[in-house]
Amino acid sequence: MTKTEILEQIAGKLRIHSLKMTTRAGSGHPTTCLSAADLMACLFFNEMRYNVNDPVDWANDEFVLSKGHAAPILWAAYAEAGILPLESLRDLREIGCDLEGHPTPRIKWVKTATGSLGQGLSVGVGIAAAQRLAKSPARTFVLMGDGECAEGSVWEAANSAANLKLKNLCAIVDINRLGQSDPTMHQHDIKAYARKFRAFGWDVFAVDGHRIDKILVALGAIGKKGLPTVILARTIKGKGVSFIEDKNGWHGRPLKPEELEKALQEIGPMPHVESWKYVRKPRAFKGPKFPAKATFARTAYKDKTATRLAYGNALAALGKAHPAVVAVDGDVKNSTYADKFFEAFPERSFQSYIAEQNMVGMGMGLAAKGFVPFIATFAAFLTRAHDQVRMAAYSFSNIKLCGSHVGVSIGEDGPSQMGLEDLSIFRPIPGCAILYPSDAFSAEACVEAAANHRGMVYIRTTRPATPLVYPPDEAFPIGGSKVLRKSDHDAAAVIAAGVTVPEALKACDALADEGIAVRVIDAYSVKPLDEDGIRRGVGEAGRLAVVVEDHFEAGGLGEAVAQVLSGEGRVKHLCIRELPRSGKAGELMEMFGISAAHIVKAVKELCGRM
Amino acid sequence: MTKTEILEQIAGKLRIHSLKMTTRAGSGHPTTCLSAADLMACLFFNEMRYNVNDPVDWANDEFVLSKGHAAPILWAAYAEAGILPLESLRDLREIGCDLEGHPTPRIKWVKTATGSLGQGLSVGVGIAAAQRLAKSPARTFVLMGDGECAEGSVWEAANSAANLKLKNLCAIVDINRLGQSDPTMHQHDIKAYARKFRAFGWDVFAVDGHRIDKILVALGAIGKKGLPTVILARTIKGKGVSFIEDKNGWHGRPLKPEELEKALQEIGPMPHVESWKYVRKPRAFKGPKFPAKATFARTAYKDKTATRLAYGNALAALGKAHPAVVAVDGDVKNSTYADKFFEAFPERSFQSYIAEQNMVGMGMGLAAKGFVPFIATFAAFLTRAHDQVRMAAYSFSNIKLCGSHVGVSIGEDGPSQMGLEDLSIFRPIPGCAILYPSDAFSAEACVEAAANHRGMVYIRTTRPATPLVYPPDEAFPIGGSKVLRKSDHDAAAVIAAGVTVPEALKACDALADEGIAVRVIDAYSVKPLDEDGIRRGVGEAGRLAVVVEDHFEAGGLGEAVAQVLSGEGRVKHLCIRELPRSGKAGELMEMFGISAAHIVKAVKELCGRM
Repeated sequence: MTKTEILEQIAGKLRIHSLKMTTRAGSGHPTTCLSAADLMACLFFNEMRYNVNDPVDWANDEFVLSKGHAAPILWAAYAEAGILPLESLRDLREIGCDLEGHPTPRIKWVKTATGSLGQGLSVGVGIAAAQRLAKSPARTFVLMGDGECAEGSVWEAANSAANLKLKNLCAIVDINRLGQSDPTMHQHDIKAYARKFRAFGWDVFAVDGHRIDKILVALGAIGKKGLPTVILARTIKGKGVSFIEDKNGWHGRPLKPEELEKALQEIGPMPHVESWKYVRKPRAFKGPKFPAKATFARTAYKDKTATRLAYGNALAALGKAHPAVVAVDGDVKNSTYADKFFEAFPERSFQSYIAEQNMVGMGMGLAAKGFVPFIATFAAFLTRAHDQVRMAAYSFSNIKLCGSHVGVSIGEDGPSQMGLEDLSIFRPIPGCAILYPSDAFSAEACVEAAANHRGMVYIRTTRPATPLVYPPDEAFPIGGSKVLRKSDHDAAAVIAAGVTVPEALKACDALADEGIAVRVIDAYSVKPLDEDGIRRGVGEAGRLAVVVEDHFEAGGLGEAVAQVLSGEGRVKHLCIRELPRSGKAGELMEMFGISAAHIVKAVKELCGRM
Repeated sequence: MTKTEILEQIAGKLRIHSLKMTTRAGSGHPTTCLSAADLMACLFFNEMRYNVNDPVDWANDEFVLSKGHAAPILWAAYAEAGILPLESLRDLREIGCDLEGHPTPRIKWVKTATGSLGQGLSVGVGIAAAQRLAKSPARTFVLMGDGECAEGSVWEAANSAANLKLKNLCAIVDINRLGQSDPTMHQHDIKAYARKFRAFGWDVFAVDGHRIDKILVALGAIGKKGLPTVILARTIKGKGVSFIEDKNGWHGRPLKPEELEKALQEIGPMPHVESWKYVRKPRAFKGPKFPAKATFARTAYKDKTATRLAYGNALAALGKAHPAVVAVDGDVKNSTYADKFFEAFPERSFQSYIAEQNMVGMGMGLAAKGFVPFIATFAAFLTRAHDQVRMAAYSFSNIKLCGSHVGVSIGEDGPSQMGLEDLSIFRPIPGCAILYPSDAFSAEACVEAAANHRGMVYIRTTRPATPLVYPPDEAFPIGGSKVLRKSDHDAAAVIAAGVTVPEALKACDALADEGIAVRVIDAYSVKPLDEDGIRRGVGEAGRLAVVVEDHFEAGGLGEAVAQVLSGEGRVKHLCIRELPRSGKAGELMEMFGISAAHIVKAVKELCGRM
C-alpha cells in the first residue's frame, strides 16, 4: 500500500470507531469526528513523532484538540496508536471511564482539558514556547474547529504566536462549514480565514481536508518561514456517511443503532491496517529537570510597603532559586511589579500584552510542560480569563495567578479597575488555594508557599502600601491563619485579610481603649480556610465574629466564615455592598464600610455594647 | 478662522483641561488624552450630531470611549460642549463627583462604563444595531486605544460588525504606540492594523491623528462602502508637551505642578474659541417608545419538561407582548431554546456566533438604547464574558442573561460544559437578581419577572426534563421563595432550587415514610434571597437546614443561606465539592452528593436520627 492508502485506511478506522462509540454512548459529536478523520490520520500516523510509552517524553510532538467535542476520534487515535486499549473505547462517557465527553488530563496524553472552544491555540502557544525554552526540537499541533474561530481568544493566541515567532507551532483548522445551531459565519469561504491568519502574521496553507496527499504536502512545509503555520482544511461535516454529510442539525447527535448500521454499510468493513506500526518515534531528547521546591531570602523591608511590590521582589528572588519559574504579563507588569522578574529573567518572561485569556492559556501550556508560571494582572481583569481559569482547574494545572489592585482600596481609578469578585472566581474551584497577604513579609512568604504547592494557587495583592505586621522569617503555610491579638476575655473575634488586617488592628486598639478586648485573626489563607483555627478563635471570643473584607458580599471570606461557623457562632459581615466609585482609598473604605471605625461599630453592635 | 483652526483651538482647550484635571486630582492618564485631543475635537465639534439637552434623544450620534482611561478628555469635551459645567472638571476623581477615573453612566451621556479595555467596540456594535433596528439615521463612534486591540473581544466585535454590515458604526483607533508597561506589539506599524481590520471585513482609513484636515476627510468618507469603518490614527502619546511626548513610563502618571506649569507654557494660553457653538444639532428623529411591562400566557405543559425549553417558549411568547425584547445567541440557540425567539422574530435576533464576550457586549449596547436583551448560552460559557457582565453592572445595564446546562445534571458532556460557578459570578454583583426555576411553569414566570424588572437578571436553567411542581398561573416574584412541604413538627428544612427541588421532594417523601417530617423550601430567587422566609422556615423547623444545590461549594445558595442563618440555625450543605466528570445525570448527582438519597442522609445526620 502507498502511504496515502495506509492513511486513508486508518482514517476509515477512526471514522468507524467514532460512529460506534457515540452510538453506544447515546450522545456525543460524531459528525465533527468524521470531518477531522483524515487530518487526524495524517497527524497521528505520519507527521507527529511521539513515544507511545511516555506521555511526558520531552521528545514528543504535542497535540491539543482545541475542538474538544471531537474527543471520540482523539480516543480512537490513541487506541489505534496502541496507547489506549481498543476495548476502552466501548466505555466512552461512562461514569467509570476516563474517556470523557470532552478531553481531560485524566488521560495523561491530554495536557489540558478542552471543550470550552477557542482555548486550545493559547495552550499550544504555551507548549510551543515551553519546547523552545527547553531547546527541544519537538513541535506542537493544535486541531481547531472553524466555529471556534469566532472566539476572540483565538486571535489573542494568533497574535501572540506570531509575535513570539513560534515556528514550532502548527494549527490545523477543520473548516467543516457548520456550527452547532447554524452554518458558521464564513462557511466554506477559506479565503476569509486565510486573510485573517495572514493579517495576524501566520504562514497559511489551504488544503482539501479529505485529500491525504494534499494534507501531507502542507504538513511537510510547516515552519519553513520562521512563523507559526496554519493549515486551513476544507472539510465536510459527517464526511463518509451520505445522509449526514454537510447537513445542519447533526452537531451533537449520535446515530441511532439502525442509522449506524446503514452508515457502516456505506463506509465498508473495518480496514485491517495495523495503525500502530505507522506511529513515528521521535529522536531522543532530554528535557530539563526541575527541582520540586525552592526557598529564597526575604527582602529587608523597613517600612510600610505594598504587597504587590513584595510580590514582585519575591518573584524575582524565587526566579533565581527555581529555574522552572516563568512569568506571564498582560501589559501591567509595572503595576503588578512582575517587571522585576522580567528584568532579571527576560528569557523566562512572556508579554501577552492586553490579552488576559491568552495570558492564562499560555500559562496553562507552559505548566503542562513542567514550568511553574506566575501569571499576574489586576484582579479585576482576571474576570476576562475566568473561562481559562475554570478550564485550568479541569486540567489540574500547576499555574499560579496573582491579582493585584483588589478592592476599593485602589482608590481613584474607579470601579472598573477594582478587583471585587476575584475571590468568588477562585473559591469555587476545587483544589485551588487562595492566599491574601496583609504585609510585605507575608506576601513574600505566600509567593514561596505558592511555588512549592502542587496545583493552582491564587495570590491577592493590594495597591497601597500597608504597614509591616510580621517578622521577616514568619512562615505562611497554605491552610493556616494567624492570631494577631488575643486575651482570655475577648468579646468577639475580628477576622480580616489583606488590606483590612491593619484596620482590624486599629479597631482592636480603639476598642481596648473602651475596655473591649477582641481577638484579631488574619485569615491570609482564604482557601483552604483554617477552619479549626477560626472555630477555636471565635469559640473563645464569645462565639461572635466580625468578618471584614475588601470584596463584594458574596463568594468571599465572609461567606466562607459564615459557612464554617454555621451553628457555632454569629457573624457580622463588613464588605462592599454597593457599586463603588472613584475616590481616595481611605474615603472609599470609610464610605463602603470596611474601615477601622466600621469594625469598632460592628463589634459593639454584635456584643450589645453600644 | 477656518474650520481647521477652530478645531485645533478646541483640541488645545481639551489638552489644557486634561492636563490640569489630572494634576489637580494627583492621578489619571493625561498622555493618552493628549494623543486623542485632535480626534476628540473633530468628533465632538464637527462630525457628531447630538442634542446637548437630551442624552437619550434617538437622533443623537452615540459615542463610546473604549479607551476609558482617557476619561478626563471625555469630561472636558462634555464641558466644552456645554453639557457639564466647566467648573465640575476641578473635581475629577473626587469621591463626591460623578466625573470618575474611568467613564460610568453616573454621567447620563455615558451609555456604558468602560475602563476594562477592549469592550467598547462590542458595545458600539450593539448601539449601532439598535439604531438600525429603530430605523434611526444616527451613527455610533467608538474611540479605541491601540493597546486594547490585543484583546480578543475587539476581534469578536469586528467580526460581528462586519457580519451585520453596520455601516453606521465607526471605530477610531488612537495609535499612540505606547501601552502601559511597554510599547505595543505593532507600535506605529499602521499597516499591521490595516491588514487586520481589512481581513475582518472593515473599510479602513489611515490618517495622521494630529492633522485635523486629514481626520475630517476620513470622517467624511465613513460608511460609504456599506461596511463598518475604522480610522487608524497615527498619534503621539503626550502630544503637545515635548518632555512627555512618545516617552514610555508616562501611562498612568499626571504631571507634577511644576511640570504642569512648564507644559502649559509650551502649549500656550487657553484659546478663546467658544467650543459649544460648534456642536452640530441632529435632524429630529422620533425613536420607538417601549412599554415598561408585559405579560404573556403560559404554555400548557402536561408532563416533565426541561426549564431551558420553557425558557425558549416563554421568550417567544414575551416577544409578541414586548417589542423591546431582543435576543442574542452564541451559536447554542438550539440548546438554550432561544431559537424559538429567533424563528419568531428574526429581525430582533442577533447571532454572535461562538463569541460570548461580544454577545454580552452587544447586549449592553442594545440595552443602552432601551431594548431589553435576553442573552443566552451555556452557563459554563458565561465565564467567558465575566468581565463584560461585571462592566454591565457598573453600567446599570438592563440586560437579562440566561445560563443553561447548569451543574452535573447535564450528564455525559462532562465538566467543561457544566455551569458550576455561575451563581458565584452573578451573586456578588450588587443589584443583580438571580432566578433559578425548578419546573417549566416557574421558568416561564421567571422570564416574565426578569423582563419586568429594571436591571440585570440572571436566569439559570437545567438541561434534563424535570417534573411539574407548580400550577400554570403561579407567580414567581423576584425576592420570593415557595414552601412546598410543611407540617407543624418539621425536624429540619431542606432548601433547594432548580434541579434539586424534585430531589428534595423525593427525600421528603422517603423521610416521611420513616416518620421524619421536613419542610421543603424552593429558593428559586437565589438573589435577592427571601431572607425572612428562610429564617422563618428554618426557625420553625428545628433551626436546622440542609441546602442542596447543583453548584460548587463556594458562592452559591449554600453560602447565601449560611450567611442569612448565621447565629440562627445550623446548615448542612450538599453541593459539588470535587471536579466532576462525564456520566449519566442521575449517576453524577448520586456520585457528587446532591441526590434525594444524600438529602435523606443529611437530614438524618443533622437531626441526630441515624
